[in-house]
Amino acid sequence: MATTTLKGQPFDRPILDSMLRRRMFYTPSFEIYGGTAGLYDYGPPGCALQANVVDLWRKHFVLEEDMLEVDCTALTPAEILKTSGHVDKFADWMCKDPKNGDIIRADHFVEEILEARLKGDKEARGLKVEEKEEDPKKKKKKSKATEAIKLDDAVVKEYEEILAQIDNYGGEELGALIKKYELKNPATGVEPSPPAAFNLMFQTTIGPSSNAPGYLRPETAQGQFLNFAKLLEFNQQQMPFASASVGKSFRNEISPRAGLLRVREFLMAEIEHYVDPEGGKKHARFHEVADVELVLLNRHTQLAGKTDVKKVAIGKAVADGTVDNETLGYFLARIHLFLKKIGVDQSKIRFRQHMANEMAHYAADCWDAELQTSYGWIECVGCADRSAYDLTVHAKKTGAPLMVRERLETPISIEEWQIDLDKKKFGPFFKKDGKTVEAAIEALSQEKREALAQELKQDGKIIIDVEGVGSGKVEVSKDLIAIEKRTRVENTREYTPNVIEPSFGIGRILYCLFEHNYWTRGGDGGDEARGVLSFPPPVAPTKVLLVPLSSHESFKPLLKYMSLKLRTLGVSSRVDDSSASIGKRYSRNDELGTPLGITIDFQSVNDKTYTLRDRDSTKQVRADEDTILAAIKSLVDGVKVWADIEKELPAFEGQETDIPVR
Amino acid sequence: MATTTLKGQPFDRPILDSMLRRRMFYTPSFEIYGGTAGLYDYGPPGCALQANVVDLWRKHFVLEEDMLEVDCTALTPAEILKTSGHVDKFADWMCKDPKNGDIIRADHFVEEILEARLKGDKEARGLKVEEKEEDPKKKKKKSKATEAIKLDDAVVKEYEEILAQIDNYGGEELGALIKKYELKNPATGVEPSPPAAFNLMFQTTIGPSSNAPGYLRPETAQGQFLNFAKLLEFNQQQMPFASASVGKSFRNEISPRAGLLRVREFLMAEIEHYVDPEGGKKHARFHEVADVELVLLNRHTQLAGKTDVKKVAIGKAVADGTVDNETLGYFLARIHLFLKKIGVDQSKIRFRQHMANEMAHYAADCWDAELQTSYGWIECVGCADRSAYDLTVHAKKTGAPLMVRERLETPISIEEWQIDLDKKKFGPFFKKDGKTVEAAIEALSQEKREALAQELKQDGKIIIDVEGVGSGKVEVSKDLIAIEKRTRVENTREYTPNVIEPSFGIGRILYCLFEHNYWTRGGDGGDEARGVLSFPPPVAPTKVLLVPLSSHESFKPLLKYMSLKLRTLGVSSRVDDSSASIGKRYSRNDELGTPLGITIDFQSVNDKTYTLRDRDSTKQVRADEDTILAAIKSLVDGVKVWADIEKELPAFEGQETDIPVR
Repeated sequence: MATTTLKGQPFDRPILDSMLRRRMFYTPSFEIYGGTAGLYDYGPPGCALQANVVDLWRKHFVLEEDMLEVDCTALTPAEILKTSGHVDKFADWMCKDPKNGDIIRADHFVEEILEARLKGDKEARGLKVEEKEEDPKKKKKKSKATEAIKLDDAVVKEYEEILAQIDNYGGEELGALIKKYELKNPATGVEPSPPAAFNLMFQTTIGPSSNAPGYLRPETAQGQFLNFAKLLEFNQQQMPFASASVGKSFRNEISPRAGLLRVREFLMAEIEHYVDPEGGKKHARFHEVADVELVLLNRHTQLAGKTDVKKVAIGKAVADGTVDNETLGYFLARIHLFLKKIGVDQSKIRFRQHMANEMAHYAADCWDAELQTSYGWIECVGCADRSAYDLTVHAKKTGAPLMVRERLETPISIEEWQIDLDKKKFGPFFKKDGKTVEAAIEALSQEKREALAQELKQDGKIIIDVEGVGSGKVEVSKDLIAIEKRTRVENTREYTPNVIEPSFGIGRILYCLFEHNYWTRGGDGGDEARGVLSFPPPVAPTKVLLVPLSSHESFKPLLKYMSLKLRTLGVSSRVDDSSASIGKRYSRNDELGTPLGITIDFQSVNDKTYTLRDRDSTKQVRADEDTILAAIKSLVDGVKVWADIEKELPAFEGQETDIPVR
Repeated sequence: MATTTLKGQPFDRPILDSMLRRRMFYTPSFEIYGGTAGLYDYGPPGCALQANVVDLWRKHFVLEEDMLEVDCTALTPAEILKTSGHVDKFADWMCKDPKNGDIIRADHFVEEILEARLKGDKEARGLKVEEKEEDPKKKKKKSKATEAIKLDDAVVKEYEEILAQIDNYGGEELGALIKKYELKNPATGVEPSPPAAFNLMFQTTIGPSSNAPGYLRPETAQGQFLNFAKLLEFNQQQMPFASASVGKSFRNEISPRAGLLRVREFLMAEIEHYVDPEGGKKHARFHEVADVELVLLNRHTQLAGKTDVKKVAIGKAVADGTVDNETLGYFLARIHLFLKKIGVDQSKIRFRQHMANEMAHYAADCWDAELQTSYGWIECVGCADRSAYDLTVHAKKTGAPLMVRERLETPISIEEWQIDLDKKKFGPFFKKDGKTVEAAIEALSQEKREALAQELKQDGKIIIDVEGVGSGKVEVSKDLIAIEKRTRVENTREYTPNVIEPSFGIGRILYCLFEHNYWTRGGDGGDEARGVLSFPPPVAPTKVLLVPLSSHESFKPLLKYMSLKLRTLGVSSRVDDSSASIGKRYSRNDELGTPLGITIDFQSVNDKTYTLRDRDSTKQVRADEDTILAAIKSLVDGVKVWADIEKELPAFEGQETDIPVR
């Protein structure tokens, strides 16, 4: 799929990528050692961008709703991830090429070959082929497989339907597709081995003895669940509430490509919102977001082999059942607003519902916020309804009471069949079997009790099954037992909360921000493109560039003074007093995404006025120190935009030689 | 060693510990599964305290000096940590009890037994024994070993000298001490096995094939070093500069006890400051800190078996050579100022120099900032001079140019012996051996060249060693070679920078903050102690508690309004509108370390004035909204202290029933 830049120019990924590396937004980890697939470091601007996005995330979610933030360990004993289901089920399907030993991810393999065949078919039909840009490595391999061969119309339809639901297949189904369509590894011409499950967790050993296996967490969620009872207590027993956590998680991807989008170590920001499963999972603040419009791609559309979306207000989507409940809907809308705030292109977001087989083992429903990039639609935020799955399995395994006890405002009367045993006679009668028989009786269901009450009335005795006592059938006469229907009053209710989990992959979001905010200006009369990253000021790595007109001594005190002023305001700035031209210095900082620039010139020395430059328009205004600082603060806080400043302050036509957008 | 609280009261660790857990500052990870030694989670207040300390760290170090922050991966391929020396040398000495299989850390074992014997000796001499508080588990084991046995005076002296330099011993020496003094495991009465090295890194495998071993980083430093060349480029080739990183590191401790002080996963904040090794490692801002006084415990004192400290201005310590150079001294002082700012007790800091054998394999000199706690003196910040060690080994291994090329202002003339070969004759003469002989000649040292020049002049030929050519001796006659002394002019200088590394263990610092800021108020006439954590406002987890006088409806809008006002100011607050008494509610927040409280009463509803309460003195003032908010902001930013506020605003004698410090 061909993508475009923020200004509608054709998007050229290698150019952006080389710019991001040159400006050290990120860099492959251990590059001087040849690098390791799926591991990347953030350099100074990447690190600052990440910190700013996380900071806004905290304000938007944690502070706004008084969530309880925790910081749990990544090292996790195996037992916990066994209970949570990750040891058995957190796997991808992996094939091996029997000829060259290549390890291949099965779903990606099927996807690539079928896409290549569809492309070949289009070529054979003489249709224009839309180039889906790929990782260069991937492209090389694939090109071998692309031959202009026409397919039957029915086959084309089959392929398209398979691709629309590729995430819905398990290992056996992927194996069957490989057999059915004779999919061969282009590198060797050989069909790979049947898919085998490969667990994605990194294993290690905790402590000096070898019998304490552990894993690096694949998500931050488990640590939050294990602390549920303490967090509920900390929250003074009030429901609903949410915990939140920002931290690294680890997934041992089979063969990571696609740069920052598929990595083995990544920063996650996760929320676990605990809600009463009864009463339709309402949310008290749902009305605040009901009008927010989202682009939705639901499960049924995908299963029908299609990818049509519709734009709909979340209030309506919940009302008509597209989105299951208010709490899920509330968070989808809040996620949308967050992505908007940090600078995601509004035309490149959709929310896609998971299909049944695609969902994680713990999820009852799940919607992904997907962002469009040159790699296709990328899952950046998951919003799953994990139901009571996790709390239930951990409570069962440990006996810990991971539940809510709620005092009922109106006590409930419950009609039920109760059993009374004449303990004085019962014990001596059954002797050593007494306890076993008693336990079997206590365990009888309400239905069974009703039937037995009838039996007791008719026959004066009942016969019940008690494993391990005599023949397994035990007779109890009416002088030992009574069964009666009575009314019991409940003052409290116990329940296991359900969990709605918005889960953010910060690294993926950052990559999408790069693509969504990138564009180029014409070069200085030449053909060299000058890159710009138009990050919104609140997320930009550095907010203000300070440039003196020249290296003249008289500018130095003002540079120092303005740096300090900005630091006091909590605004990050950088000085560029290199000998490069002012235009060059601004260019460099356009690439770093610095939204504002202050030029210090001779007039500044005389009257303490400064010019303030806007990165995106390259327009400048001029005013005195206090006015300029106030303007900067309002832009960085997101209270005003440049258009407001331009209206308020006098324009300045100055030294800069920027050439407008071509 | 008996410790006291902030107010000089006897310190009771179990009481503090239970309060910290009750208020969820921290909690053992996976507690419902029985917990895992050395792993802890931070709950909401711990998490906020940690975030605030890290935030102040960034401001104090990174922003103040324009350091280049990076975020590198924890997963690290084995090759890198092999090169850095960690695979071979990053180990502790471990013994095994042959009887019960206990795994014991050798140095801690020797320390404990000798201390127990010294205590027994004191008892036998009828001296008062100063109770050194220990972890409860540890205490139980140890008590068995403590018997009141008098030792020879000479033995007492030996033991004391060994303990003063316990960190200086290697495995062999620890084994010898165990043999010599017949140290037996109190649990079994058996002497443990000789110490063996146990590597402290967690191992794993990166990727699906099993031949890519990796480790979790034991420090954040390596990622910074590997990016050195790119960071220098990012810094526009300017030296000196520093990189910085905040992130988790992992050490597989043998048998972690001592709560938050010895853990297997921990947050580190590390700085790598790159400095020219020539010119005495001066620092341009050293004069700003020269008068800062530090408490120093140097290497010589420890080796003499003593622990005497002296308080000295860092300027003097550098001048007299106690601290090696200005850059190291600058950072020691900056560390001191940081610790002071975040609330470390000034009477409980010392800087201890490492002894030769104690230093990490990479360090040329190292001073630890140690903080005094009920566990003894704890290393919280290390400040090592890693010399050029790391950059050199990685450059050597990979061939990457991890060095600085500096243009010399005045070019240097270098006199040297240069060799000219007559290439036309040389090649044909030596044929296939030509290249080998040439390489051997080029590798000749200056000294050797001078001697050979003499030989050539005398004999008309020289004889040189060339391995692998003929007999290993090769004759070169004067028609093939000339050796002359000439002057060469150098315009650039290349050097590998040295690294000064301040390295902060954030978790240890947090624990020390707990102990240093804890004290108790008398109970309500009873004997129950009421805990207070007197964190400085800038680091306190929550800054303001908002309490309505009662649950009266009229207070609700004001609560909401003031919450929003505080949030806009960037000040974190919490509302407590529970039915508990105001005193109780404040008590709870004293335990959470909340420095300020606003009471909303009926007068507030009428005239929008509020009372502001100081946690430490429980004094209150009353003023209008704007005045109160300004006071809060100035306290939270650390611009003013409570005494200032008390002078400026009218006191309020109100509802609270706090009882003063007993």
